[in-house]
Amino acid sequence: MPRRGSTRQHMIESAIVLLRERGAAATTIDAVLAHSGAPRGSVYHHFPGGRRQLLLEALTVAGDVISSLINKATADLEPHAALERFAEFWRAALVSSDFRAGCPVVALIVDEGPDDPDIAALARTILDRWRAGLREGLVAHGIDAERAGRRATLAIAAVEGAIILCRAEGSSEPLDSAVAELVPVLAAP
Amino acid sequence: MPRRGSTRQHMIESAIVLLRERGAAATTIDAVLAHSGAPRGSVYHHFPGGRRQLLLEALTVAGDVISSLINKATADLEPHAALERFAEFWRAALVSSDFRAGCPVVALIVDEGPDDPDIAALARTILDRWRAGLREGLVAHGIDAERAGRRATLAIAAVEGAIILCRAEGSSEPLDSAVAELVPVLAAP
Repeated sequence: MPRRGSTRQHMIESAIVLLRERGAAATTIDAVLAHSGAPRGSVYHHFPGGRRQLLLEALTVAGDVISSLINKATADLEPHAALERFAEFWRAALVSSDFRAGCPVVALIVDEGPDDPDIAALARTILDRWRAGLREGLVAHGIDAERAGRRATLAIAAVEGAIILCRAEGSSEPLDSAVAELVPVLAAP
Repeated sequence: MPRRGSTRQHMIESAIVLLRERGAAATTIDAVLAHSGAPRGSVYHHFPGGRRQLLLEALTVAGDVISSLINKATADLEPHAALERFAEFWRAALVSSDFRAGCPVVALIVDEGPDDPDIAALARTILDRWRAGLREGLVAHGIDAERAGRRATLAIAAVEGAIILCRAEGSSEPLDSAVAELVPVLAAP
């Protein structure tokens, strides 16, 4: 979570909203200032590294929120139910944004990843953590580690892809369909 | 396919490369001219609608290439083998670009979809066509139409999501893992 009070936090939250709804290239300092209402002077006060620092911090915060969600879900629930909770988080985000908001990690990989090794490395770490969370839940339910790794990868990939399909369709049907077919895969011995 | 000779075709091909590797926001007229080597005057000669027309035509061409691939694969092969061929196309594109190139349809949905209803509608039509191609292959192999639709959606979503994971990882492992777990889903009765 942000550490230096509310302007800093609002700027990070605005960056996440913009990444999700408008993509990484549109997540400029000007757009974040306009969205958050923060004064221009706060950029170099809170983010001396400028736009890149803000993007990296937004990515860290967004990644941690989802990691916590996955880890809590896999601790509390069977793997297929943990997947349903993960999907429910995205379904709610899609519906509440009228299907405008996707995943901020994906936005950064698509726009910035090829040209920014730090952003690419952080995105990779985050996605690895999500996959590991689900994999460990599967292993705890008796699935062989290699198969658990593949199933976790399938589940994360399918949900990320389905979010994009939902944005194109303006409907949660692709996510619902993908999850309906994934549940037996994750519940299988 | 492009209809008016090679400058036009080169510009569309450059737009597709840029969409895949740098994202939609970076796919400007200037970037397409620099990449294709086309003279500036060709923009309004070949694309009187400017950047939007070029993006829509690039999206159409890219969508048609993949639709043909899916339709041919499902006509020639069992559904799980058609999926493997679809994945192999993307694996080759990832490897040959050193994991820089993703899906141009995804790039446009993430950056332009929320603000451009024409691009969003075309992206939706293309994804629907891909899903329908795979669904029809499953139906032809005796799968109930509703389940076939859900499995096709899962497969397209998982491959699209896995492409993004591969770009983050700099490896085809996420696509390979996802496909290994999808094959039995598509081969099941």
